[in-house]
Amino acid sequence: MTELVKTRTKKIGLPAGALVHIGDASTEKIEIKIIDYNEDNFKEIEVENVEECFPFKNSSNVTWINVSGIHQVDIIEKLGIYFDLHPLILEDILNTDQRLKMEDFESYIFIVMKMILFNEKKNRIEFEQVSFILSSNFVISFQEKKGDIFKPIAERIKAGKGRIRKMHTDYLVYALIDSIVDNYFIILEYIEDQIEDLEEDVVSKPVPGTLKTIHNLKKEMIYFRKSVWPLREVLSNLQRTDTKLIKQSTHIFLRDVYDHTIQVIDTIENFRTMVSGMLDIYLSSISYRMNEVMKVLTIMSTIFIPLTFIVGVYGMNFKNMPELEWHWGYYFILFFMSLIGMGMLVFFRKKKWL
Amino acid sequence: MTELVKTRTKKIGLPAGALVHIGDASTEKIEIKIIDYNEDNFKEIEVENVEECFPFKNSSNVTWINVSGIHQVDIIEKLGIYFDLHPLILEDILNTDQRLKMEDFESYIFIVMKMILFNEKKNRIEFEQVSFILSSNFVISFQEKKGDIFKPIAERIKAGKGRIRKMHTDYLVYALIDSIVDNYFIILEYIEDQIEDLEEDVVSKPVPGTLKTIHNLKKEMIYFRKSVWPLREVLSNLQRTDTKLIKQSTHIFLRDVYDHTIQVIDTIENFRTMVSGMLDIYLSSISYRMNEVMKVLTIMSTIFIPLTFIVGVYGMNFKNMPELEWHWGYYFILFFMSLIGMGMLVFFRKKKWL
Amino acid sequence: MTELVKTRTKKIGLPAGALVHIGDASTEKIEIKIIDYNEDNFKEIEVENVEECFPFKNSSNVTWINVSGIHQVDIIEKLGIYFDLHPLILEDILNTDQRLKMEDFESYIFIVMKMILFNEKKNRIEFEQVSFILSSNFVISFQEKKGDIFKPIAERIKAGKGRIRKMHTDYLVYALIDSIVDNYFIILEYIEDQIEDLEEDVVSKPVPGTLKTIHNLKKEMIYFRKSVWPLREVLSNLQRTDTKLIKQSTHIFLRDVYDHTIQVIDTIENFRTMVSGMLDIYLSSISYRMNEVMKVLTIMSTIFIPLTFIVGVYGMNFKNMPELEWHWGYYFILFFMSLIGMGMLVFFRKKKWL
Amino acid sequence: MTELVKTRTKKIGLPAGALVHIGDASTEKIEIKIIDYNEDNFKEIEVENVEECFPFKNSSNVTWINVSGIHQVDIIEKLGIYFDLHPLILEDILNTDQRLKMEDFESYIFIVMKMILFNEKKNRIEFEQVSFILSSNFVISFQEKKGDIFKPIAERIKAGKGRIRKMHTDYLVYALIDSIVDNYFIILEYIEDQIEDLEEDVVSKPVPGTLKTIHNLKKEMIYFRKSVWPLREVLSNLQRTDTKLIKQSTHIFLRDVYDHTIQVIDTIENFRTMVSGMLDIYLSSISYRMNEVMKVLTIMSTIFIPLTFIVGVYGMNFKNMPELEWHWGYYFILFFMSLIGMGMLVFFRKKKWL
Amino acid sequence: MTELVKTRTKKIGLPAGALVHIGDASTEKIEIKIIDYNEDNFKEIEVENVEECFPFKNSSNVTWINVSGIHQVDIIEKLGIYFDLHPLILEDILNTDQRLKMEDFESYIFIVMKMILFNEKKNRIEFEQVSFILSSNFVISFQEKKGDIFKPIAERIKAGKGRIRKMHTDYLVYALIDSIVDNYFIILEYIEDQIEDLEEDVVSKPVPGTLKTIHNLKKEMIYFRKSVWPLREVLSNLQRTDTKLIKQSTHIFLRDVYDHTIQVIDTIENFRTMVSGMLDIYLSSISYRMNEVMKVLTIMSTIFIPLTFIVGVYGMNFKNMPELEWHWGYYFILFFMSLIGMGMLVFFRKKKWL
Repeated sequence: MTELVKTRTKKIGLPAGALVHIGDASTEKIEIKIIDYNEDNFKEIEVENVEECFPFKNSSNVTWINVSGIHQVDIIEKLGIYFDLHPLILEDILNTDQRLKMEDFESYIFIVMKMILFNEKKNRIEFEQVSFILSSNFVISFQEKKGDIFKPIAERIKAGKGRIRKMHTDYLVYALIDSIVDNYFIILEYIEDQIEDLEEDVVSKPVPGTLKTIHNLKKEMIYFRKSVWPLREVLSNLQRTDTKLIKQSTHIFLRDVYDHTIQVIDTIENFRTMVSGMLDIYLSSISYRMNEVMKVLTIMSTIFIPLTFIVGVYGMNFKNMPELEWHWGYYFILFFMSLIGMGMLVFFRKKKWL
Repeated sequence: MTELVKTRTKKIGLPAGALVHIGDASTEKIEIKIIDYNEDNFKEIEVENVEECFPFKNSSNVTWINVSGIHQVDIIEKLGIYFDLHPLILEDILNTDQRLKMEDFESYIFIVMKMILFNEKKNRIEFEQVSFILSSNFVISFQEKKGDIFKPIAERIKAGKGRIRKMHTDYLVYALIDSIVDNYFIILEYIEDQIEDLEEDVVSKPVPGTLKTIHNLKKEMIYFRKSVWPLREVLSNLQRTDTKLIKQSTHIFLRDVYDHTIQVIDTIENFRTMVSGMLDIYLSSISYRMNEVMKVLTIMSTIFIPLTFIVGVYGMNFKNMPELEWHWGYYFILFFMSLIGMGMLVFFRKKKWL
Repeated sequence: MTELVKTRTKKIGLPAGALVHIGDASTEKIEIKIIDYNEDNFKEIEVENVEECFPFKNSSNVTWINVSGIHQVDIIEKLGIYFDLHPLILEDILNTDQRLKMEDFESYIFIVMKMILFNEKKNRIEFEQVSFILSSNFVISFQEKKGDIFKPIAERIKAGKGRIRKMHTDYLVYALIDSIVDNYFIILEYIEDQIEDLEEDVVSKPVPGTLKTIHNLKKEMIYFRKSVWPLREVLSNLQRTDTKLIKQSTHIFLRDVYDHTIQVIDTIENFRTMVSGMLDIYLSSISYRMNEVMKVLTIMSTIFIPLTFIVGVYGMNFKNMPELEWHWGYYFILFFMSLIGMGMLVFFRKKKWL
Repeated sequence: MTELVKTRTKKIGLPAGALVHIGDASTEKIEIKIIDYNEDNFKEIEVENVEECFPFKNSSNVTWINVSGIHQVDIIEKLGIYFDLHPLILEDILNTDQRLKMEDFESYIFIVMKMILFNEKKNRIEFEQVSFILSSNFVISFQEKKGDIFKPIAERIKAGKGRIRKMHTDYLVYALIDSIVDNYFIILEYIEDQIEDLEEDVVSKPVPGTLKTIHNLKKEMIYFRKSVWPLREVLSNLQRTDTKLIKQSTHIFLRDVYDHTIQVIDTIENFRTMVSGMLDIYLSSISYRMNEVMKVLTIMSTIFIPLTFIVGVYGMNFKNMPELEWHWGYYFILFFMSLIGMGMLVFFRKKKWL
Repeated sequence: MTELVKTRTKKIGLPAGALVHIGDASTEKIEIKIIDYNEDNFKEIEVENVEECFPFKNSSNVTWINVSGIHQVDIIEKLGIYFDLHPLILEDILNTDQRLKMEDFESYIFIVMKMILFNEKKNRIEFEQVSFILSSNFVISFQEKKGDIFKPIAERIKAGKGRIRKMHTDYLVYALIDSIVDNYFIILEYIEDQIEDLEEDVVSKPVPGTLKTIHNLKKEMIYFRKSVWPLREVLSNLQRTDTKLIKQSTHIFLRDVYDHTIQVIDTIENFRTMVSGMLDIYLSSISYRMNEVMKVLTIMSTIFIPLTFIVGVYGMNFKNMPELEWHWGYYFILFFMSLIGMGMLVFFRKKKWL
């Protein structure tokens, strides 16, 4: 995913709410997993058939339905219809080129976020869209692909550690958001390492490759920023929205993840400033090096061009050139030229070129 | 349309509300098309004479009057007078150099937008002004030229698919706006392709042509931004305005198209950042290349200038130059010069120029 | 008028409200013209003596007193005293280095604006301050010099065309403001033409003159922006101020001129962006050209410097240089040098310098 | 005063309200002057001993106590204690590195401002802190040094001209602020002159001295901006604060000085833009000049390097070089070389280098 | 501490409120010191065991518990549990990569700040996190390491000087914050000194080391800004928050430290502007120097290249070269060449290169 705009051509002309998957094609099977729990009980189900989710719609426990893969439109549609999701919401879930947002539909809240992952194989950052449906008794999360990010939360629920089993769906959604935001810091560390490497390269060996790396880093940060910046608003809306779905006790946790988001955004901004500065340094380094090259050329030329002229003079074939006949003429001219050469060196030293 | 300001000279000195067409001249006939529908009925009329529109003013159905072409002032004026439009509105419709805006006149709402189209023949982006009059039972849309953008909506109405036939004029206007905004994404894709091409060129072959392309791209984005930026405000005003013309149920759709607009604006901003960066890279590339050129020159000069001096010395015609008489003098001097040459090469290697 | 600050030295130390004319000195006679009208009557008077204006203070018609020239402080003072203007207002009218503003004094509203005119003789933009006093039954306008900008309005009033004769003083002031704002577009067109010329020059013949033109254009836009930017606030205050002097029916016209102002400001901003970009292009063009120059130098030097060295070798006067004796030595060395020359050309072609 | 931060080391660790003078040391005697007046009476006293001020604390007239010099902490402290000033206020008065501010303590208002003066001896701008205590019946002003800026006001009070004798302490403070702001315009004029000089230099003789001047000008404007920017807020707070100390009738005067402040700030911003642009022009000028130098070098080299090669060829000492024997060989080769030389000139003319 | 992001890897996947120390590892013993005082009494205790703090929880005096060192999680946890601190607060205290903030938990207020210290050994700026718990009768402060910054306050309390012994916990927290902010000014002075040194270097000896210094200075200011910027909000929240913990009488002191914070932020911004400008000057200096180098090269080459050509001509071995036979040929050609040389010098003087 290295594009700011994804191909939407297949959507043009369709009515609002038409369900089309916009994103990377995939042939994997969609994986749906249900975790149903309350303070005392815990149940985990790998769903074969989407209909298995339906009984949980009115479960009195907290039910977390995690959908990994959104490329099979019919499955998402079935889920959406059964759980009364607005067609525009389904459209947004399927369109992985969605801007981050939070919408309150009274009976449920819809949240879109971006996961940012480091793909070690391809050695680059990748972005994945995650959507949440937060209802009073169930949470549905939609990921683009299977991934490990939510595993620790599932395990914490299973183990019954901490407060998660005692809390409601809003805390679960908070925990999911928090785990995504925590992950941003890992990516920031990775970017900081890259910047530090660059700082070295940019002064010691400024080659066009460095330039390319700077440019790519800048682009990565544009994508990163685009994927995190609106989260600030999403989270502050979550706190301010007038809904019963989010308990007062969860507000402090949302504020905490909000603070982390601000910190991520600030850090990206600071990184941007630093990378911009690096381009200036790259340019200055090149200029400086050119200057050094020029100096070598100028010193060599300035010393030898007059000398070459002098030896040229005594290479002329005029009949009447008395100096040529002098016994010490040759030695004298050698001495004279070394004087000139040394004069030049003194001149360059005065100019601080040497 | 490649100018930020259109010639208004013919308007100077005229009173407010004076009707003058400002825009590209055209001799095509204005085309007016009426689509009149409700949930059960559908009627489509190609209008020959503007008076044919008048009966629909008080129709109980939803009536969509699409006017393609605004260069015949008298036709627009007749329509305006019959449908009770304020003279300033008519002036705005005719002036294709209008800023995007939305104005609420209680009995109707006036909206000005810009279509952005890719002209494949001329291989460039073109802008077209579209105005909407949203009344309780009719919608009038004014385009500068005939075009295909609204066709899918006409067909959807005809086919009776989706919710459009069940909804009112406000939904129709939403659908029209949405189709325009959807089209922006196509242009964004086109621009992104251009940027990607540039990214290659700017490092591998930085010629003034590249510079020109960057400059044109920048200008296109200035026009684009100018044509989209105020839409944000227009759409948020549409939602907040205290009017009966826009039903509560349409708000969620307006919010959706508002989100898309924000995304378009964000993307343009990101593109701008990327294109600006490209100019820096262009400059750096040129500097780098100059550096390379300089190095070649300096290496060649620095090696051969001293050698040329030496051979000059032994080309002097002094009587008394003992070396010239030595039997191995020539071979010795050749050997000496190759020593100097290799010394230079070692020096350059140490300086990392080779 | 090409300065951002006008000489105020003569004002330093004077109390607030002290009347001093700050601006270009002038010896022309101040010209005062009165137009008095209502829907049915119309009267136009060229005033010889400022006292002639006094009877119109309480006229039941709309009276427009247009004062061209403000360099005669006593005349302005007499007017001000008779029409009960606050001393600070008079001070502001006389100080042509005034920032745009609007002040509501209950019985009248005071507005300061800048006219922007193109002086064809001097081929440059000029700025002129205009002040308005809007009262319930009279409008006083102060211009720095005689000019043609308000003529069409006077003629429209005389002809009784349009709605102006039916409206009150607020509409008259709107019409005057509108004619000034309309004029801004003419200046924008002129600037756009200049920018287009520059775009050509900057790539094809980047000389320091171009640089000077860019710099002047930038300055013109700083002045322009300074003279228009606060108008936005002035106009929005005019709409929001809680006064009886501005009728509800005039609001839509003020909104219209407000929209135009925003458009002027946006366009200036876009121009600024474009002109800034042009400087980058200028710099890049120069760098590119330098690169081209360098290449020519390097190619010539790199080919001929080694060759010159070789011919130097065989110009040495060593006794024992067997090659010199060879019959084909000369031809062989010529052939060898052409090999080297062609090798260099191949090398440059590979480096894409040719 | 050319530093953004003044040495505070002696204050570190002291409690809030500890009185320490931070600023330029001075050994002059502090000068205190009292002007006591109402509409009918006027009294002016040069104070020898700070206790002479105390009787005026409850005078029914307007009393203006002007303190020139704040380096004697004990005098300021005595004044402060007798006039019931908060210790933090005294601390602020003594710390000349104070940010502009206005604080309302019900019984009095405290204002800190910066005077900006042009020191003709040192040919540079200097900054001086001025503080005001505005009470219902007295005004205390603290200056860093003796100065002439308030003299015209003292004289106006003495002469009884204008409205100042009829007004209260708030008008006196306004008049003092106004005289400081008026003075800013003189400094702006001085800066504008400097900028104009620079505009010439930067194109015609871009030397490092120019660079230094630009840099100093930039710094001066940073200091200027720092010293004026917060005044905007101070003055708007003065108008909005809910106090009896400022009469309604004074508001219009405060608004007037507020407008001037905005104008000063705008002008500084415009100056900053212009000076920034100048650096770009400086860089471009240097690049352009380098280009010119390069062209001369390249033209000379490109013409003479091949010719020198040719004469080198015929300077070789091969036995068998038939051309050397030709009778017209020499003339032919001279002719051939002039052909090459002219070819080069044509080539440069085509490249527009000549 | 030179990183914008600290390693959080050990926290990923843990639930909110999990206590993990994030920051520089340390093996020093945590030092806890209690100062308990009211107007009349004073007690100072070096705590061996964290439990010794517990009795002070409900002390009627003001109790200040200063904890130096936060790397022993169990000690912080014990304190937190006994003093009823929210787990998220404890988490924030332990995470030294925390953004500045202030949170109001009714019974106590939590504040996070950054100390900025100059490490003279390492010759660089260091950052340390400080957290405060402000309750009605106790203040707990957490520092990362032992330090001297709070010592003067402890001594002032001991000595009973000033108002501190008469005030409550809110004044104590103010005093602590104030001492940290005062310290910022010392760092600003240090940075200003560095900038002044740079100003010299950048013009007189622009070497890559200068570039590195500029870059480091920029980074230091990014860190500084990051550590101070949010303090503005923290302090204004402290004033506005609806709490009984902060007395009205303390507001003026908070406003004072708020003013200082604004001043620190402004100064950093001004420093940033100045350092950015320095990079431009660095680049210009290099360009200027390159220009000078080029001129020397060009002057030398342009004078001697044609002369060398001429002497080459008369070094040719043509049989028939009449000039060679002329008696004065050699002298004539020397004279001719000095004419050319002087012509060149005149040309360069006209071009102002000499």
